Amino acid sequence: MSKLAWLLLASLLLPPVMAMSGEQVDLLITGGTVVTIDDQWNVFENGFVAIRDAKIVAIGDNASKNLRDFQAAETIDARNKVVLPGLINTHTHLPMVLFRGLADDLKLNEWLYKHIFPAESKFVTREFVAVGTRLGLAEMIRGGTTTCCDMYYFEDAIAEETNRAGLRAVLGQTVIDFPAPDYKTWSEGLAAVEAFAEKWKPNELIHPAIAPHAAYTVSTEHLTEAASLAEKLDLPIVIHLAEARTETDYTLKHYRQRPVEYLEQIGLLSPRVIGAHVINVNHQELHILQRREVGICHCPQSNMKIAAGVAPVPQMLAAGLRVGLGTDGAASNNDLDMWQEIDTVAKLHKLHNGDATAVSARQALQMATLGGARALHLEEKIGSLEVGKMADLIILELDAPHLVPRYDIYSLLVYSAKASDVVDTIVNGKILMRNRQLKTLNLQQVIAEARQIAARIRKPLASAAE
Amino acid sequence: MSKLAWLLLASLLLPPVMAMSGEQVDLLITGGTVVTIDDQWNVFENGFVAIRDAKIVAIGDNASKNLRDFQAAETIDARNKVVLPGLINTHTHLPMVLFRGLADDLKLNEWLYKHIFPAESKFVTREFVAVGTRLGLAEMIRGGTTTCCDMYYFEDAIAEETNRAGLRAVLGQTVIDFPAPDYKTWSEGLAAVEAFAEKWKPNELIHPAIAPHAAYTVSTEHLTEAASLAEKLDLPIVIHLAEARTETDYTLKHYRQRPVEYLEQIGLLSPRVIGAHVINVNHQELHILQRREVGICHCPQSNMKIAAGVAPVPQMLAAGLRVGLGTDGAASNNDLDMWQEIDTVAKLHKLHNGDATAVSARQALQMATLGGARALHLEEKIGSLEVGKMADLIILELDAPHLVPRYDIYSLLVYSAKASDVVDTIVNGKILMRNRQLKTLNLQQVIAEARQIAARIRKPLASAAE
Repeated sequence: MSKLAWLLLASLLLPPVMAMSGEQVDLLITGGTVVTIDDQWNVFENGFVAIRDAKIVAIGDNASKNLRDFQAAETIDARNKVVLPGLINTHTHLPMVLFRGLADDLKLNEWLYKHIFPAESKFVTREFVAVGTRLGLAEMIRGGTTTCCDMYYFEDAIAEETNRAGLRAVLGQTVIDFPAPDYKTWSEGLAAVEAFAEKWKPNELIHPAIAPHAAYTVSTEHLTEAASLAEKLDLPIVIHLAEARTETDYTLKHYRQRPVEYLEQIGLLSPRVIGAHVINVNHQELHILQRREVGICHCPQSNMKIAAGVAPVPQMLAAGLRVGLGTDGAASNNDLDMWQEIDTVAKLHKLHNGDATAVSARQALQMATLGGARALHLEEKIGSLEVGKMADLIILELDAPHLVPRYDIYSLLVYSAKASDVVDTIVNGKILMRNRQLKTLNLQQVIAEARQIAARIRKPLASAAE
Repeated sequence: MSKLAWLLLASLLLPPVMAMSGEQVDLLITGGTVVTIDDQWNVFENGFVAIRDAKIVAIGDNASKNLRDFQAAETIDARNKVVLPGLINTHTHLPMVLFRGLADDLKLNEWLYKHIFPAESKFVTREFVAVGTRLGLAEMIRGGTTTCCDMYYFEDAIAEETNRAGLRAVLGQTVIDFPAPDYKTWSEGLAAVEAFAEKWKPNELIHPAIAPHAAYTVSTEHLTEAASLAEKLDLPIVIHLAEARTETDYTLKHYRQRPVEYLEQIGLLSPRVIGAHVINVNHQELHILQRREVGICHCPQSNMKIAAGVAPVPQMLAAGLRVGLGTDGAASNNDLDMWQEIDTVAKLHKLHNGDATAVSARQALQMATLGGARALHLEEKIGSLEVGKMADLIILELDAPHLVPRYDIYSLLVYSAKASDVVDTIVNGKILMRNRQLKTLNLQQVIAEARQIAARIRKPLASAAE
């Protein structure tokens, strides 16, 4: 028989999902319900995922594949468990976990100008940022977040910690028109972004970004400079976008345009942009965001708590926009729990639109995974479990009363699953948590260090109250 | 010295919170942060709670008391933990956990008439109810709920299971104007309520109630009969009240009154009544509810998911109404997690009122405890940690990244704590969960039995889909 005939015969006999016999892999996950979030919404009951060199090299049903064909360096038995893509937290300020619960139930301006900005100016140092980041990373790994997009000060320290702990991240060094805890002038900030980008560009996990804070805190001239620098260095631009009503008032007053219109007009919007919140947008602005392929980070719980409003998510989804979910910083949420965002996004838009069919369970889970990847413009690498994508995945156990019974896997994950159901977290093929035990962070030490810093912050608070 | 002089001297020397030296107690909890939810919002750092004969007999600061004065049969060391009143779930349908995730993202009428009612008529038996109740109780105990108010069919089976598992409950046997899974006619239903009440009235944990389903499913004549029976037997009345817009349309069409006005006019409203949802109420109706001392069960997550609307909770609280929180049944939520209701109630009303100060953390936690007790008209017995109240309390551990740091204990509990942080659950002085291990239910068996029932339900679903 000719070689071609053999190949044809083989293609008929072999299952579509396959690997070479005796194929060496680094990690093999077997026996779980594999929820892929791929284009066909494939779910493999009794499935498997094979990982080599940080990538998914095979995925499918156990029945379609003789798993003894794999020579796996490590195996995870996921029977009675669910395997799904790691969650993507598209908007946060990691070190702000150290301000968790410092000031709640306040009007936005009072919260920001009387509590958060003063606390930041007084307490935020490189050490604060490093300690806070470790605490935030611990919380994220435990809850199954494998990628985040951050925006804060001393972003280099955040990159150091994130890389060491093994998470994937888009990390935006903040630039802003007032003296920041790290850099006192605009030009210092821009120079820092260049050094930061140069240092982290080669890193596999860290995507350095520039983060002009917002349209109301950075001048037109500086926003344009930031956009040019992003272009020159090929960086994502992370920015707060159309969040508060006051932001719209500001741009209308100063530029006679709404925030999205204004940023479009000055040439900032492009597929580089990752915009957080995007609440106050009209129909035309949605078109702009679609045309410019801007990533959108929807933070439902933060928006509720700050009373910022409701983003037009069903409309965004209908228009095919790049919408992911984010927790925002823990000073305004107050946690980094993506499962509550998933649950909330499905419920909030039903209520807001008076339509119990708005934002389905599938849409909610997709926003937290593939949608988040699209919002960060990383959908070629992450967001779903498919051959060729990076091995960022999580495993949940199902033997808990709140996860029984199981009729629809998407309903169960969206409306009933909790962060505490995650048992294993894997990023870039590396196990960061196994059976709820962190592998790259010392949890007790992380907590102790965070409490030490908080004690310094609490003291002046306590004396002010006396 | 005279006996009187000795007593006077002793009263000067001893701290205000005290017990007799060598006092025998059943259970002593020491060393935790005791959050009382009493009128003074007392929080005892390094506090203690002493329990005897199912009641709290002493509470306070360790410093104010020599704990060696207690002879405790059992001691719980709560250092680095938080002790607080058990949560009160004021509205649920426990056995519906077996329909969790069966039908989601549907319009209310389609959900109810095409999925839930048919499933109930086909599958709800006494066995179904018993198995579902055990599953729901396991979820509640794990999440720190110590009292619930239920409303379903075969309520006697729910009472059996709840009493055996050791939770406190107001249990409403449903009466409704169509053939129900348990009783086919109105008169059978009423007779069953009498037997049910007679059987459970003497029980310490179970408060039997009558539960006419709603104003749109029970005729005026029958509602009046139910109210008379409640009066005769001295029972609470549990009823769905002003939930859906369609309910208001119905009473306006048939009785030319809005739901609360209508029930007031027919004489149903009184301090016996526990009304679930109470969304569509105007200013005048709030006055009626206040005057009649009606208990209100606010179910924010269910109301969002079904797109039912937003109850005027800040107005209710301002008027001093008896407002508690509830999860509703797990077919419309989809869990019995009171922590997410607490988090949601604080955030939802901020958003809805455009006011980030609406529903503070204290108000949210109070609604889940003392407010719930007031909604069930049980505030003399439960809802706060005070001497003389029943010993219903829970203990949370704080050594988790999402609970670090701690600035304000109420913020931390409301915006950051999760059901999975509860380690111990105590009801009526009895430990139902210790170090996350259930003491009165066999979790593996409960889950296995629930899955068996669900498999029967899934089968016709699967064939219908073919």
